[in-house]
Amino acid sequence: MHKIFIIGAGRSASSLISHLQERSLEKNWKLVIGDFQKELAESKAKNHPHCEAIFFDANDATQRKAEISQADIVISMLPASMHYLVAKDCIALKKHLITASYVSKEIEQLHQEAIKNDVLLLNEIGLDPGIDHMSAMQMIKGAKDKGYHIEAFESFAGGLLAPESENNPWKYKFTWNPRNVVLAGHGGAVKFLHNGRYKYIPYNRVFRRTEIINIDGYGRFEGYANRDSLKYIEKYGLQNTPTVYRGTLRRPGFCRAWDCFVKIGATDDSYIMENSENMTYREFINSFLAYNPNDSVELKLMYYLKIDQDSDVIEKLHSLDIFSDKKVGLKNATPAQILQKILEDKWTLAPTDKDMIVMYHKLVYGTGTTHRLLTSHMVIKGDDQVETAMAKTVGWPMAIATELLLDGKISMRGVQIPIHPEIYEPVLSALAQKGIVFQEHEIELDPQQMSSL
Amino acid sequence: MHKIFIIGAGRSASSLISHLQERSLEKNWKLVIGDFQKELAESKAKNHPHCEAIFFDANDATQRKAEISQADIVISMLPASMHYLVAKDCIALKKHLITASYVSKEIEQLHQEAIKNDVLLLNEIGLDPGIDHMSAMQMIKGAKDKGYHIEAFESFAGGLLAPESENNPWKYKFTWNPRNVVLAGHGGAVKFLHNGRYKYIPYNRVFRRTEIINIDGYGRFEGYANRDSLKYIEKYGLQNTPTVYRGTLRRPGFCRAWDCFVKIGATDDSYIMENSENMTYREFINSFLAYNPNDSVELKLMYYLKIDQDSDVIEKLHSLDIFSDKKVGLKNATPAQILQKILEDKWTLAPTDKDMIVMYHKLVYGTGTTHRLLTSHMVIKGDDQVETAMAKTVGWPMAIATELLLDGKISMRGVQIPIHPEIYEPVLSALAQKGIVFQEHEIELDPQQMSSL
Repeated sequence: MHKIFIIGAGRSASSLISHLQERSLEKNWKLVIGDFQKELAESKAKNHPHCEAIFFDANDATQRKAEISQADIVISMLPASMHYLVAKDCIALKKHLITASYVSKEIEQLHQEAIKNDVLLLNEIGLDPGIDHMSAMQMIKGAKDKGYHIEAFESFAGGLLAPESENNPWKYKFTWNPRNVVLAGHGGAVKFLHNGRYKYIPYNRVFRRTEIINIDGYGRFEGYANRDSLKYIEKYGLQNTPTVYRGTLRRPGFCRAWDCFVKIGATDDSYIMENSENMTYREFINSFLAYNPNDSVELKLMYYLKIDQDSDVIEKLHSLDIFSDKKVGLKNATPAQILQKILEDKWTLAPTDKDMIVMYHKLVYGTGTTHRLLTSHMVIKGDDQVETAMAKTVGWPMAIATELLLDGKISMRGVQIPIHPEIYEPVLSALAQKGIVFQEHEIELDPQQMSSL
Repeated sequence: MHKIFIIGAGRSASSLISHLQERSLEKNWKLVIGDFQKELAESKAKNHPHCEAIFFDANDATQRKAEISQADIVISMLPASMHYLVAKDCIALKKHLITASYVSKEIEQLHQEAIKNDVLLLNEIGLDPGIDHMSAMQMIKGAKDKGYHIEAFESFAGGLLAPESENNPWKYKFTWNPRNVVLAGHGGAVKFLHNGRYKYIPYNRVFRRTEIINIDGYGRFEGYANRDSLKYIEKYGLQNTPTVYRGTLRRPGFCRAWDCFVKIGATDDSYIMENSENMTYREFINSFLAYNPNDSVELKLMYYLKIDQDSDVIEKLHSLDIFSDKKVGLKNATPAQILQKILEDKWTLAPTDKDMIVMYHKLVYGTGTTHRLLTSHMVIKGDDQVETAMAKTVGWPMAIATELLLDGKISMRGVQIPIHPEIYEPVLSALAQKGIVFQEHEIELDPQQMSSL
């Protein structure tokens, strides 16, 4: 009887756990769910016959080693910064580890040690990173196998609202970590390749350099650039590809309105505002605007950012009550923390709201004389507030990889991400059976279409 | 015979040294000038009978202690980060130290130790910081002594070109550390107080929120906000003053054009550009612009930033040859480093160019029912490339403070800045004798003028 140890029972673990519970009956697995809040683990275990919930403190080395030593495989849903402790123990105790987080520098350095101990540390196998890697690599490999040269690769993903739940002017609510949404684009200039030229976008322009993407049956989206697309060149084997770009999807108009917060400085996380606790939302906005005793805060903002009073931008801003006298109520808060609070008032999912994940790839490849454009998209909606599209697309790839590994169908060892056919082929086919399907569309490009890309 | 040890003989030490040499004859001082480049020290010593030039390595603890122990007072012109080593030795050896640098956290912590050893560590006694503190404090004290309440304090300074040397469209050249000019505004949001409201400006807006200042006889200037004006509230005793603002002066139009570099991301110092060595200036600019095979770099930039082709902004940009095929020639350079290189081609002082320092304070004070506006300005031009206005205004206050200290006219000890009358009164009167004079202008404000401030 194989034993799977799942660390962390938060929101994003729901679909992972329910899928593993389902499979555990046929496979005769034992699942142990450990969380610092035992009740949370219990709520996910749901008294399933193959499932045990325990209190687990990842910082307690004794308990950590004890629990890991009894498992055959470990799935860590901990914050990324905490994976290292678990990974070290997994190597020492010769247990495989699966995470949905980016490979950190510390984890990367465990590669040889993991190989020596016959252990796989499989990371970046959630949605993004995860399904993005796998579906992109499958497209790229398909084109290369046919002898084509990859001329452009673009990839977008977004955690959005299902169309029936787009009930605010932004057509957006938080379906994932709100802090990451507020800080999107922070931490360094955007970098990508366009037709052989390196391109850089500073934070103050990221939300003004967007691209419109149309997806059949789902309408129009806009994509803004992710921070560093260049690091995917080597990962994806695109060393000779002149265009490499990754972005995030929102509904059209989101970015232009969001840019207002960027421009005034409301997304800054580097300093604490004076008297943030007693500040009103209106005073928060006013603190970024020049003093003028004759104009209202609304007028000053519109004038400062050149926003028309009848525009969708001002409608979006008004919908957040940013001009109201509501109290912030946060002590020693940064602008970004205050903005997050304001947004959470309006962008928290209602019980009936459903989320939606959209992923879109665009590949141009050719022989030198002929060129083909292959687009591929995947859209999946959440069922409810537990089985969200986010939880499914993050959790299922991890669950499927766990099964493949327990079945001996993955032989790779060391620190890996799912860019190898041995991993992504079976994971993608299992995902397809669960409804996570990419729709492909391919056309031949004439020279004029090529030059306008 | 008092002995003065001057560490660092760079450009900014010229006027300091020549003034001390002049005074050394009457006062019978011995000057020792130490520099890592002995020839530089020699060129400043100019075989003056009271002056000795030595090779000096500030990182050599043995030499450092030996030289400091033989001096009565030490003047450090080292980079700010190196003052701490010197300061520690000065305390141990009971020698006073004078610098023109901001008090660092490390230096601040030496206060009690310095007092214990009867040592004065006098910092921030150059131009800015230095003359700004002294002249501001004199104005503020003057108003307070008359029983007035300070209602607004604004202060601006700029290292500019003398009008006769304003021979480029920016009316600007580097008269000080070019890197600091390129990175101006970096490192955190601007903070100030305006009529009792805390105001914050993010980097992307700093150069668009400017104020026009007119100085009789010198024309119009524009001021942009310095980073943190709030830290002057306590320093200057302005705890109940509703407006506290500090800024930097340029000629009108500079900031709007500079903002182009900010907006495209050319002042970013956080990442290295690919292939910077072989990049042309044109390619540098193009790397920040969206790909478009049909438009020129000039057109793309104008369109992106909404610049009219016949505007002064485009004239300013063209004057820097940013659209030329000149090679950058810098390995592994950041955007800010490349921009500095481009600017140095055009913004380096010619042998005949003269610089000019402008300082401007604005004080509103009153009794509650009546209000007065006091403005004060100081303008000083350089004589040539050695006795620049910058070297004079940085060096003379240090030299004067040195003399006062040797004459026993400053009794304060510990870590100090010149905000105390005991220091600033005699320094300002000695500066006035050397032509550094503030012109004051005072008017009574009627209620309408008050409300429009």
